[in-house]
Amino acid sequence: MAKNCLVGQSGGPTCVINASLLGVIKEARKHAEIGKIFGCKNGISGVIHEQFIDLSKYDDKKLELLKQTPSAILGSVRFCLNKIEDYEKILEVFKKYEIGYFLYIGGNDSMDVVNKLSIYFKEMNYNCCVIGIPKTIDNDLLFTDHTPGYGSAIRFIANSVCQIYEDTSCYQNGRVTVVEIMGRDTGWLTAASKLASLVSKGPDLIYLPECAFNLDDFINKIEDIYQKKKKVLVCVSEGIRDDSGKFLVEKFAYNQDNDVFGHMQLGGVSSVLTHIIKERLNIPVRAIELNLLQRCFAITSSKIDVDEAIRCGSYGLRQALFGQSGKMVVIKRSKKEKYHIMYRLVDVNKIANQTKYFPKEWIINDSDISSCYISYALPLMNQEIKVVYENGLIKFFKL
Amino acid sequence: MAKNCLVGQSGGPTCVINASLLGVIKEARKHAEIGKIFGCKNGISGVIHEQFIDLSKYDDKKLELLKQTPSAILGSVRFCLNKIEDYEKILEVFKKYEIGYFLYIGGNDSMDVVNKLSIYFKEMNYNCCVIGIPKTIDNDLLFTDHTPGYGSAIRFIANSVCQIYEDTSCYQNGRVTVVEIMGRDTGWLTAASKLASLVSKGPDLIYLPECAFNLDDFINKIEDIYQKKKKVLVCVSEGIRDDSGKFLVEKFAYNQDNDVFGHMQLGGVSSVLTHIIKERLNIPVRAIELNLLQRCFAITSSKIDVDEAIRCGSYGLRQALFGQSGKMVVIKRSKKEKYHIMYRLVDVNKIANQTKYFPKEWIINDSDISSCYISYALPLMNQEIKVVYENGLIKFFKL
Repeated sequence: MAKNCLVGQSGGPTCVINASLLGVIKEARKHAEIGKIFGCKNGISGVIHEQFIDLSKYDDKKLELLKQTPSAILGSVRFCLNKIEDYEKILEVFKKYEIGYFLYIGGNDSMDVVNKLSIYFKEMNYNCCVIGIPKTIDNDLLFTDHTPGYGSAIRFIANSVCQIYEDTSCYQNGRVTVVEIMGRDTGWLTAASKLASLVSKGPDLIYLPECAFNLDDFINKIEDIYQKKKKVLVCVSEGIRDDSGKFLVEKFAYNQDNDVFGHMQLGGVSSVLTHIIKERLNIPVRAIELNLLQRCFAITSSKIDVDEAIRCGSYGLRQALFGQSGKMVVIKRSKKEKYHIMYRLVDVNKIANQTKYFPKEWIINDSDISSCYISYALPLMNQEIKVVYENGLIKFFKL
Repeated sequence: MAKNCLVGQSGGPTCVINASLLGVIKEARKHAEIGKIFGCKNGISGVIHEQFIDLSKYDDKKLELLKQTPSAILGSVRFCLNKIEDYEKILEVFKKYEIGYFLYIGGNDSMDVVNKLSIYFKEMNYNCCVIGIPKTIDNDLLFTDHTPGYGSAIRFIANSVCQIYEDTSCYQNGRVTVVEIMGRDTGWLTAASKLASLVSKGPDLIYLPECAFNLDDFINKIEDIYQKKKKVLVCVSEGIRDDSGKFLVEKFAYNQDNDVFGHMQLGGVSSVLTHIIKERLNIPVRAIELNLLQRCFAITSSKIDVDEAIRCGSYGLRQALFGQSGKMVVIKRSKKEKYHIMYRLVDVNKIANQTKYFPKEWIINDSDISSCYISYALPLMNQEIKVVYENGLIKFFKL
């Protein structure tokens, strides 16, 4: 007898989390073992509150727009599965809707739900395969060469930085421009600013959280470059820390003894740094946060990233049909020159609460990135998608 | 006898200032009366310092990249022409290089140079036609329906806002997101955030400098919307002012009696507003400055804008060949339904130091924009350019 498929989205959105949803829906339609395809609103919270959407009704052409729709079309959630009544409610709803396959598209934290539910269903003798589909722009998941979402994020970042570089270079006497890039504890996203140097003469300096940030050294480097070029472009991770492990933002925004900003934090690390540069060197500065656009500017999405996100979804469902559960899809890359990947599964409990850091051997003198990274990153972002516009505006899939 | 043509770029860069340069070069190649085509580095400063680039040598195919190269490829400058020795030096250099046609691509301030030089050359009986080619993302020049640069800027802004809207909508309990948009004293750029509502359900509120900003009213509106939707997207002009005409940023960042930020300014109006919202309503907030990307993100340039920028350049040179001088090119739009424009000249002294404000009758209840603006703006940005990439990065013209 056919069982139904349920798919949900969770955690911070990316440009391709909806592409993975598309992969699941497309694959589900190929299999007679699968009856209906449901989506739950706002991840696991939509299961508990029985907010289901029948995804079977949308035609293929309309669904294609999922490839260029950022954010999470089903709605997202940050939810920790702990209470026994939540488990019981989920099981009740799964039984009611005859869910035999549950695909959960999310990051690190969402994999905890995959892990717990797969164990719980086994304990309760409920036959349902639970598979995690990875997504995060941060690229900080272990066991996978890269994460869906990363390629599109770095394509936006690299293209933004080279365009900003050209803009900030046009005056003879320029400024120190500090571009702040996301990535939490890791420098994967900020490293992508190095790709801009393939078309522009910068950035001049790049700082990742993987190296302890030395403020005096930073100021000296800025001064040197500014004296020579009269303009400096610096890219920094939001999460840079000093050698004691303290976030730079935290250090300067909250330390009452050394209070630069009063009692409240007003901006990120780019504000902090431009303020210090201005104070110490008295040269013109500008802070730029790339901010949310890094994870939602679908117009510049990477085609490879979109395609891989779709395939992660469809591969995940196929593996569920094979009876796999409690696993996450990962991308393995062959060592060959030409870019070639395979999809595999990894036990989801190995993934949760782990972080894959940017390799230190790819960081040069604390403030530059080696060509090894360029070789790693280029295949993930070297093709564009064909965007469908209406009135000059990117067209979204709407439920 | 053939005379040479000189072209320069000045003021803040845009995505299409190089397209206007392309228009001048392409047109110059058609005319036997024109010998060489020179570019001066960093605007008029490159004339004074005799820094000329021979633009005749580049082939057409390479020059095509100017259509997608942001910033000012010749370098820009902010320069006030006052000293008599500067005038004399300019005349000397013009004579030496036999310049008969001078095209200056720039904004409001740059037109002052066009005005002064055209008068000076006439007084000195030096036969040289000086024509201004307009550019500014701000769209604040009089006598022209719109300015080259504006269409591309609003295409980026509208697409950014709708993508940010989707991103910020994905949680059930969201934040108040305040997006800060450029435009100095006018709201032309911020109004473009309304175009996002053609594909998304927001923004919720839009504030332009043309209406006095009432903080209490603003907070009330935010509270209302947040109570209903649990998320709010607000777009504000960097230059909003209170009813006494004081910039909001200035009021809260520098007023020592009412000192919110201590002694220094750390961010723009979005930082100020999110801080106040947080303090008064204690709800989650996020500030986003679209920042420099508004004027340099050439990947999303408007095709109409690029084409018009080229034609402004070529029209300007043709008019110089007809003997016109001391004029700026403007764009006139017919009143017909279908978008149709013509190029004309206006005396440059009418343009300088004037500002074209956003029409107050297009602002609804201080915080929304009428459909009249949508009709005005859509034809300026409803087509995309075909971007040439290399390795996934936008390709630039390089001198």
